[in-house]
Amino acid sequence: MSNHLHNELRKEFQLERLILFSDAVFAIAITLIIIEIKIPNVAEDKLTEQTLLRALTHLIPKFISFLVSFLLIGQYWIVHHRMFGFVVNFNARLIWLNLFFLMAIVLMPFSTAFYGEYILKPVMTSVIFYTVNIGMLGIINFFMWRLISNPRNKISENLSPLMSRYFALRSLTVPVLFILFAIVYRYNPLIAFPIPMFIPVILRLVFKPMKKRIIAQKIKTTENETV
Amino acid sequence: MSNHLHNELRKEFQLERLILFSDAVFAIAITLIIIEIKIPNVAEDKLTEQTLLRALTHLIPKFISFLVSFLLIGQYWIVHHRMFGFVVNFNARLIWLNLFFLMAIVLMPFSTAFYGEYILKPVMTSVIFYTVNIGMLGIINFFMWRLISNPRNKISENLSPLMSRYFALRSLTVPVLFILFAIVYRYNPLIAFPIPMFIPVILRLVFKPMKKRIIAQKIKTTENETV
Amino acid sequence: MSNHLHNELRKEFQLERLILFSDAVFAIAITLIIIEIKIPNVAEDKLTEQTLLRALTHLIPKFISFLVSFLLIGQYWIVHHRMFGFVVNFNARLIWLNLFFLMAIVLMPFSTAFYGEYILKPVMTSVIFYTVNIGMLGIINFFMWRLISNPRNKISENLSPLMSRYFALRSLTVPVLFILFAIVYRYNPLIAFPIPMFIPVILRLVFKPMKKRIIAQKIKTTENETV
Amino acid sequence: MSNHLHNELRKEFQLERLILFSDAVFAIAITLIIIEIKIPNVAEDKLTEQTLLRALTHLIPKFISFLVSFLLIGQYWIVHHRMFGFVVNFNARLIWLNLFFLMAIVLMPFSTAFYGEYILKPVMTSVIFYTVNIGMLGIINFFMWRLISNPRNKISENLSPLMSRYFALRSLTVPVLFILFAIVYRYNPLIAFPIPMFIPVILRLVFKPMKKRIIAQKIKTTENETV
Repeated sequence: MSNHLHNELRKEFQLERLILFSDAVFAIAITLIIIEIKIPNVAEDKLTEQTLLRALTHLIPKFISFLVSFLLIGQYWIVHHRMFGFVVNFNARLIWLNLFFLMAIVLMPFSTAFYGEYILKPVMTSVIFYTVNIGMLGIINFFMWRLISNPRNKISENLSPLMSRYFALRSLTVPVLFILFAIVYRYNPLIAFPIPMFIPVILRLVFKPMKKRIIAQKIKTTENETV
Repeated sequence: MSNHLHNELRKEFQLERLILFSDAVFAIAITLIIIEIKIPNVAEDKLTEQTLLRALTHLIPKFISFLVSFLLIGQYWIVHHRMFGFVVNFNARLIWLNLFFLMAIVLMPFSTAFYGEYILKPVMTSVIFYTVNIGMLGIINFFMWRLISNPRNKISENLSPLMSRYFALRSLTVPVLFILFAIVYRYNPLIAFPIPMFIPVILRLVFKPMKKRIIAQKIKTTENETV
Repeated sequence: MSNHLHNELRKEFQLERLILFSDAVFAIAITLIIIEIKIPNVAEDKLTEQTLLRALTHLIPKFISFLVSFLLIGQYWIVHHRMFGFVVNFNARLIWLNLFFLMAIVLMPFSTAFYGEYILKPVMTSVIFYTVNIGMLGIINFFMWRLISNPRNKISENLSPLMSRYFALRSLTVPVLFILFAIVYRYNPLIAFPIPMFIPVILRLVFKPMKKRIIAQKIKTTENETV
Repeated sequence: MSNHLHNELRKEFQLERLILFSDAVFAIAITLIIIEIKIPNVAEDKLTEQTLLRALTHLIPKFISFLVSFLLIGQYWIVHHRMFGFVVNFNARLIWLNLFFLMAIVLMPFSTAFYGEYILKPVMTSVIFYTVNIGMLGIINFFMWRLISNPRNKISENLSPLMSRYFALRSLTVPVLFILFAIVYRYNPLIAFPIPMFIPVILRLVFKPMKKRIIAQKIKTTENETV
């Protein structure tokens, strides 16, 4: 019996290790996006308040892409955090899917720097690259939700079919919006620009009725349990 | 019952994960501030003890800004450590506020390098940028204290109203001093320079009476509990 | 008795610290391999969709070496994760062997960048360097399995002699394949190229019968225990 | 009672957080020392096996300083790991001393790169800088041992006066040997070179009798406890 408890604790620690390793990768990726922004460099003989300020304002597009990427990686960390709140077990497939998810996270500092560098230039390559990276995140995330919510895998707990469908759909929203963003950007960058900012609004509006049903279901379950 | 304990442990682990993720970001930001300092580079044909030493002394302003930023990030880590010592729960708002706080931490290597590069030059832009970054840290920290100490949120434990006021006020001291520093720096950099070094002194002097009252209150509570 | 439990918990935490420190090193190394890939740089007056796309395609060899290294470090993390799933104790030798293993992991970003830079050039130095690095990983890994499976060291639990032999042999497969890869590469890079991709296939095919025997043995043990 | 246990667990987690934050800083510093080594760069028209190999051999001094620093940081991590194996509590002073210790660790990638760059040149500045950095590590480490072993602070457990003296003395060995190394290096770099390699030998020889007495004492205590 005590041996059983021991094995349980070990399995739990193995799962925690998987999670904390992911956290470390998230933390490094979210911090590395800043080191691609080099500080403004003004030659000594031309250094005045104005030239330095102008050099700093040239960095604004890079700061915007930093901000967008920071919030995106942060958002995906929150999703990862929420997802593994349901996970009680793991298998080789979850480990590998998680590793590919982390690979897409690790790519973000590169994509962000690439996108930030050419944000105001009349080129699409960098925008598409960035969109593909975000698309990878969304799609792998979608498959992770599918994997853990499949009852046959016995990976998760407390995750109703409705909830798992809700989370899987949500994970596709960000890539869909970024593809839309890339298409609009092709014709008019200025109109495209604010699209990513609508992500939280859309997430809230579109998924509100679904969320309500989940909460209603939960209350019901708890009532049944109490009875 | 056992199920309840299980859920309690999971919630606790989710909170720990939030904390350890923050720690990793702190650790990376505090380590990255050094890689902005490039080693002295002296051409082979001019390399003597004197030229190398002179090249090294040129880095002194950068080492000072490294030292100041290391201590500041360290200080904010200690504050974060102390704050989450009271936290027993979390909500979406705490996660997002914490993420914005980490964003300001992640900006520090950039601000430090920027400030260190132009520390001896007659420009204000870099000083103001650095001050704004520190101001962001202080203000977000202030709102975090407000959020966790609000009893309606049920986030914290053992945090009396007096203590939460004490910590919230403390969190504004650093930004206020750095704004003062920026203003004085505008007129005389040499006088401004030592201002940040007074932070620990001021924190001790100004908040000593408040701290005494907190300790007195604590002893009282413990006595009552014992009785 | 309670003191004994206390010491047990401390020893366990010391072991966990060793593991989490290793995880952090893995996480940083796996993230750093991307920062060696610099974003495509096209001069403003020559910037068109085509030139940028061409500059991006020039990075393909680097992305391939990034992908290979990411999967290799990930694979070794999984091996480390699996290995320490058996470990219940540690001694000075395990700490040092683990440290040397981490040194080989830390070298990976350098080897990857070196290999990626000269991947299409008619030189062997970078390929050999990369192969040596992977060889180091495999060999140290082999000795780690030997160390922890030796019953005299009392480091591991639930690790049968068959399993330890299985894992030790497996750890040599990757270096052996990379040496083969380097030899073939010497004569024909195009034929050599797909060799590393066979790693998972070979691991599966060669070790399948052995794995079957392990599982058979396990079931037997469990049956005996149940009886 | 349950509340008391709860507070105990929280205090323990706060201590763990301090430790894991330190681990993350160690892990990043030990990984960053590699990124200061840039891959060999040979112009396309001059690229042959020989030129690339020669460019690689030019990096040997940097690899040696990488190796020395990796082992030193690793050694200090082991010391930190051992030290906190005795720690059961913390105070503000331990947090700050630990932070200064981490600052010296964070400086190591810079010192290593600086030392590695000028290792074969007739200059002392970089050697002295490196020695000062290692001296800082040893001295802060010495004070940490003093702090935690002082029974008035109630920070440690199971740490006899003999053991604390043993560890404190040990922590001064590395800086003393590096100062010796710097002095000899001044006159003859070739003789100085192997001095750091004697560190493990000296640690073993000099401290062996002291270690024996500690073990003897431990056995005695355990016997008394058993009786």
